[in-house]
Amino acid sequence: MNVPEIIRKKRDGKKLSIEEIGFMISNYVNKQIPDYQFAAFLMASFIRGMDKWETSAFTSAMLFSGKVLDLSSISDFKVDKHSTGGVGDKTSLILAPIAAAAGVPVPMISGRGLGHTGGTLDKLESIPGFRTDLSLNKYKQALRRHKAILIGQTKDIAPADKLIYALRDVTGTIESIPLITGSIMSKKLAEGIDGLVLDVKTGSGAFMRTLKGSVELAQSLIETTKSFNKKVMAFITDMNQPLGNYIGNWLEVYESVKVLEGDEVEDLNEVTHNLSGAMIYLGGKAKSLKEGISVSKEMIRSGKAYDKFKEIVEFQGGDFSYINDLNKYKKPKYRLEIHAPSSGYVKMIDNYEIGMSALELGAGRKTKEDRIDPKAGLIFYAKIGQRYKKNDLLAELFTDNKRVIELIEKRVINAITLSKEKVNKPKLIKKIIK
Amino acid sequence: MNVPEIIRKKRDGKKLSIEEIGFMISNYVNKQIPDYQFAAFLMASFIRGMDKWETSAFTSAMLFSGKVLDLSSISDFKVDKHSTGGVGDKTSLILAPIAAAAGVPVPMISGRGLGHTGGTLDKLESIPGFRTDLSLNKYKQALRRHKAILIGQTKDIAPADKLIYALRDVTGTIESIPLITGSIMSKKLAEGIDGLVLDVKTGSGAFMRTLKGSVELAQSLIETTKSFNKKVMAFITDMNQPLGNYIGNWLEVYESVKVLEGDEVEDLNEVTHNLSGAMIYLGGKAKSLKEGISVSKEMIRSGKAYDKFKEIVEFQGGDFSYINDLNKYKKPKYRLEIHAPSSGYVKMIDNYEIGMSALELGAGRKTKEDRIDPKAGLIFYAKIGQRYKKNDLLAELFTDNKRVIELIEKRVINAITLSKEKVNKPKLIKKIIK
Repeated sequence: MNVPEIIRKKRDGKKLSIEEIGFMISNYVNKQIPDYQFAAFLMASFIRGMDKWETSAFTSAMLFSGKVLDLSSISDFKVDKHSTGGVGDKTSLILAPIAAAAGVPVPMISGRGLGHTGGTLDKLESIPGFRTDLSLNKYKQALRRHKAILIGQTKDIAPADKLIYALRDVTGTIESIPLITGSIMSKKLAEGIDGLVLDVKTGSGAFMRTLKGSVELAQSLIETTKSFNKKVMAFITDMNQPLGNYIGNWLEVYESVKVLEGDEVEDLNEVTHNLSGAMIYLGGKAKSLKEGISVSKEMIRSGKAYDKFKEIVEFQGGDFSYINDLNKYKKPKYRLEIHAPSSGYVKMIDNYEIGMSALELGAGRKTKEDRIDPKAGLIFYAKIGQRYKKNDLLAELFTDNKRVIELIEKRVINAITLSKEKVNKPKLIKKIIK
Repeated sequence: MNVPEIIRKKRDGKKLSIEEIGFMISNYVNKQIPDYQFAAFLMASFIRGMDKWETSAFTSAMLFSGKVLDLSSISDFKVDKHSTGGVGDKTSLILAPIAAAAGVPVPMISGRGLGHTGGTLDKLESIPGFRTDLSLNKYKQALRRHKAILIGQTKDIAPADKLIYALRDVTGTIESIPLITGSIMSKKLAEGIDGLVLDVKTGSGAFMRTLKGSVELAQSLIETTKSFNKKVMAFITDMNQPLGNYIGNWLEVYESVKVLEGDEVEDLNEVTHNLSGAMIYLGGKAKSLKEGISVSKEMIRSGKAYDKFKEIVEFQGGDFSYINDLNKYKKPKYRLEIHAPSSGYVKMIDNYEIGMSALELGAGRKTKEDRIDPKAGLIFYAKIGQRYKKNDLLAELFTDNKRVIELIEKRVINAITLSKEKVNKPKLIKKIIK
């Protein structure tokens, strides 16, 4: 096999074989193929696309570039959830204990915040002492003992993805459905799961802004998951506004604990119970999604999910006293209220701008080297369709960084469009695809 | 300006501005853009294409990456010819002295052999003592004194092309009309020409095998030449069989000298006189192409072209005694005759195979480091449409490399398809485009 020949084949829109795709990925990882040739290959793949067989082959080559965990010694049906990322999306923190409490093991390997979206690892690490860098032995132990574990990607898992993602980032080849599919699935399949629930976000705060793009991505993810003989179910959920009200790392832990304690946060609860309901259903602990959702709600009501959360936090070294007394946490230096400049219905929210505002306040990273401020972020009260009077509270900003406050205040105000006319609430669960 | 943004723009099929293209090329040459980003840019440009304005901008950026010769002190209208390359294509050696003898200065900067096609520089250097590495001062002096010069590309000329061509070669981005146009025209426009005659080859021995592709390339070359305010005329000529009968470096000098001495080699003479006729016409020394062709033929008949060839060879250090006595040249060690395996009409010739056979006999290079054997090559008698009886002579092979002879014998025989039915001679000049 010859590299320029494979590049030309894809360039001309022809289908590549499993061997050709495997050859490209494994030789790139082994540094036998230079960056410039792989960049040309990525661009050709981006523009010409890959069909579902090629996408599976690409995923497989990335997956087997590293370790694939064998959890067959744990006999239960293991289910994880993956979200394509959003603003205020803290469902993992709530649904992992719910599903585990219902008897479904959740082997979750998560990522860090990326751009305007937060990352589960960063959120968990805001709990003092909480460690996400556990060994794979500890990972198995936790699963067996507590049925849930939330750790970060180790170096052994899909090393090809790390290399390829870095190259895609600088060569304009990020927004490709087959390439995104390979990147997501190679990491998820390495976890040792039997089933996967997908939350594909759509709207201004999502990577896929259009419903069409989100459905296409969901279908590609589903087909690839199925090609590995795993059970799968996908939800297309709205990301035109933050999920829940709290955005920022500790702020999202705070809101998650509140929900685990029984608080009702309408949109957050709806999405979470759908996803955990699906996990319980796929995991064989309910006969339908509907029954799964009932079981999920029961786990909250009974306090079992909260207890499971305690188990997880303590197993992973977290200081639970901060959860027991949520007000014990260190307060940010600055707090600023944002009030409605006029009265009206919230018509539109530029949710990307809200995510970027949280980042600028200190909740995210602009470069890989940036340090996160776990206390920073915002509480965002405004919801599409809701009516506000002039001077009503729309949001609160929290930061230690005085320099950015005024700028972010303007940015948040500009991100909210008010209208004199009545506006409908957007549908939260746009589609369920099996 | 931001590199990934420009890459994404081209990736999505949008038109780039002159500034954006200039930014990419100049920063790549200055090593501010790494190979992998430029490779992604090349692939996006390959697949999405470039319109005529982008192609001009690309050409201009490559051209001005280096020195552009100023020949304005030579008042005559200077015309060069460029061929896209073929097998046995030795017209430059004949038409440069013809046009110069007719009073049209020919500032010719040529290349070396590439793959199955020969290079003018390699052919000229087979004349003992002939030097193609003259300085730009000598270049101007020769033009003023002899109205013709044939040298190789210096490092100062279009350095971007050299870098970009090397990257295209390994990233599957060679066969793109805008990229080819930029590569050819940036070098030709650097010569200081006022007009250009293009010989775009078509058929099995050409880089563009289809007539459609060749016409497209010709149009792109013409439009780009015109955008630089130069006169231009293009010929699409047949390359389904070798031009003339001699293939190999000294062998082609031999046949060229024979034509300059007045020998008739039907196809070679027809193509050459059309091209030199066009040069004479563009150069203002004839009122029409037809008159240009008459003048061209007269230059041969009168011996003026031959005398001009002598002037050029001697100015460039060549030992003319080898031209005076063509049999003085060292003979190859091995000579093998190839005879017709059956009788019939020549229906088809795989001309790429003939070119590759010459290369394997020693006339070309497989890698840049290979040394050429100037004596090696073949005399190829077979012409499409001609009838041969069994055992008639079809070709003679010449080489010092005993190891390859048998293989090449088979390869040449396999490249010729004989048919019992009568076959028409192909049209030599397929199209003239102004």
